[in-house]
Amino acid sequence: MTRLSLNQITTKGWSLAQAVRGCVDAGIPAIGLWRDKVAETGVAEAAKLVRDAGLAVSTLCRGGFLTAPDPDGLRAALAENLRALEEAAELGTDTLVMVVGGLPEGSRDLVGARERVAELLGELAPHAGDFGVRMAIEPLHPMFCADRAVVSTLGQALDLAERFPASQVGVVVDSYHVWWDPYLSAQIDRAGDRIASYQVCDWTLPLPADALLGRGHVGDGCIDFRAMTDQVTAAGHTGWIEVEIFNQEIWDTPGEETLRTVLERHGAHVEPADAGPARGEPA
Amino acid sequence: MTRLSLNQITTKGWSLAQAVRGCVDAGIPAIGLWRDKVAETGVAEAAKLVRDAGLAVSTLCRGGFLTAPDPDGLRAALAENLRALEEAAELGTDTLVMVVGGLPEGSRDLVGARERVAELLGELAPHAGDFGVRMAIEPLHPMFCADRAVVSTLGQALDLAERFPASQVGVVVDSYHVWWDPYLSAQIDRAGDRIASYQVCDWTLPLPADALLGRGHVGDGCIDFRAMTDQVTAAGHTGWIEVEIFNQEIWDTPGEETLRTVLERHGAHVEPADAGPARGEPA
Repeated sequence: MTRLSLNQITTKGWSLAQAVRGCVDAGIPAIGLWRDKVAETGVAEAAKLVRDAGLAVSTLCRGGFLTAPDPDGLRAALAENLRALEEAAELGTDTLVMVVGGLPEGSRDLVGARERVAELLGELAPHAGDFGVRMAIEPLHPMFCADRAVVSTLGQALDLAERFPASQVGVVVDSYHVWWDPYLSAQIDRAGDRIASYQVCDWTLPLPADALLGRGHVGDGCIDFRAMTDQVTAAGHTGWIEVEIFNQEIWDTPGEETLRTVLERHGAHVEPADAGPARGEPA
Repeated sequence: MTRLSLNQITTKGWSLAQAVRGCVDAGIPAIGLWRDKVAETGVAEAAKLVRDAGLAVSTLCRGGFLTAPDPDGLRAALAENLRALEEAAELGTDTLVMVVGGLPEGSRDLVGARERVAELLGELAPHAGDFGVRMAIEPLHPMFCADRAVVSTLGQALDLAERFPASQVGVVVDSYHVWWDPYLSAQIDRAGDRIASYQVCDWTLPLPADALLGRGHVGDGCIDFRAMTDQVTAAGHTGWIEVEIFNQEIWDTPGEETLRTVLERHGAHVEPADAGPARGEPA
C-alpha cells in the first residue's frame, strides 16, 4: 500500500468534503486535515466524513503559536492548543502538527521566545498524553524564524522534544524546511521514533514575492527525495508521507489535476516501485 | 576609535572614489571593497586611492563559487580565486570573503557540492598563506542554499575552516545570515580567532520580491546587535565591524544620507558609548 497522504492545504480550493472525495477517487488512503477547513464543516461531521470514506487522518494542522509575550496571550495559546488536541483526538489522528510561533511584534528577544515555547510545551505535554495525541514540533525554514517559528532546525526541535515522553512530543520532518541542513542525516537518525510526521514538497527558485508560497511539486526543485525518504524510513518512520504544498499556482489548478500530479511525482521520486523491500504498512 | 567599516555595497550607486571620499568625510576609518568596483578603477589605482585617503581595507568581497560540476568549471574557479587573493594582497587587506556557491543548475547533489567546496578550499589554502590573505568562509542564510552558498551555518563553516591553518581559512559572521541559528552563541565562542570578518545589517519583514535585497539598516529589524557584538568581541574578534546592506531603497538613497544613518545606528545599537571597557583597537 502507498504511504501517500494528501495534506489538504495542497488542494486549498476544496472544502473538506471535496478533498475527502478527491482522495477516495484518486486512491489516496490518508489525509492531513487543517483546523480551519474542519471548522467549516464542524468537527463531528468532519470526523464522520473521513471515517465513512475509509480514510486515515495522518495529522491535524495545526497547533502552536506559543510565543506571546504576556500572560493573557499565553493563557489563550494554552486554551487554543487544548482545543486542538481535543479536535485531533475526535478526528481520529494521533498527531497534532505544532508551528511554534515567531518573535512577538517589535521584539528582539529570540532566546526568551524559545524559552516560552519550551515552557508551554511542558504545560501541554501531559494533556497530549491524556488525549492520546502527540504534538509534533515542526522546525520551519530559518527564513520564517522572525514571523512564524523560532524553531528552525531538526536538531533544535529534538532538543525540545526530548525533554518529554516520545508519546507526547515528537517532530515533523518537512523536506522544504530542512533539506538545506548540513547535519540533517545525523538528526534524522537521532530522531528515530520521534518522527511523528514526514511531509514533502520541493524547493524551487526563484522564491516568490510571498515567501510562504514558494513550494513546488515533488520533482520540480532541488531536493533529493529518494535519499531523504530512505533516511526517514531507516530511522523508524514507516508511516504516512504527506504531500503539503503552499503555492498559489497549484492552488489555482483544479484539485483533480493536482492529485494526478501528486500521485505521479510520488511514484517517480518518493516511493518508486523499485524501492526495494517493503517498508511495512503505515502506522 | 570606532570599529565601523563601510562595506561599499551599502552605497552601491557610488564609485570606489566616491565611497572612499564618503568614508573620509563621515569619519569612517575603514572600507570593505568589492571586486567589480575595484575593477572599474583598476587594482593599482584603487589601492592607491584607499591608501592615500588613510583608510584601512577591512575585506575584499568576494571569492568563492567553488561548486562547478565539471573539471573546466573547477579550474576556472581556482584561477579566479587566485586572482582574487592576489588583488586582496595588493589592496592591503588580509581578508577575502568567500561565498562558496550553490547547487549547479539542475543538480540535487548537495553532499557532492559541499565536498567540492572542501576540496577547492584545500587547493587554495596554501596560496592564501603565500599571499598573506585569509579566506573567510561566509555561511549564507539557508534560503540561499540552492543558488548561492551550500554553506549555511557558522558551525558548518567552522567544520570546513578547521581543516586548515587559522591563518589561511577563517569565517565570516554576518548578522543577517546567522541571527536565527539556535546554536549561534556556542559557535561564535568556538570560532574564536577564526572570525575574520563581522558584518552587520538587520532582518526586516516582509521579505522583498528579490530575497537578496531584504536587508535593513541596523535597528530596523529584529536582531539584537548588542548581544551579538558582545559575543563576537568576547570570542576574540576585536577588529572591524562592516556594515553591508543589500536593499534597493537604501541604494536609491544619496550616499551621504546613508552614511549618516549607518553612523547613527552603529552608535545606538552596535557600539554604544556606554558599552563598557574599550575593546581594543581594530586589528
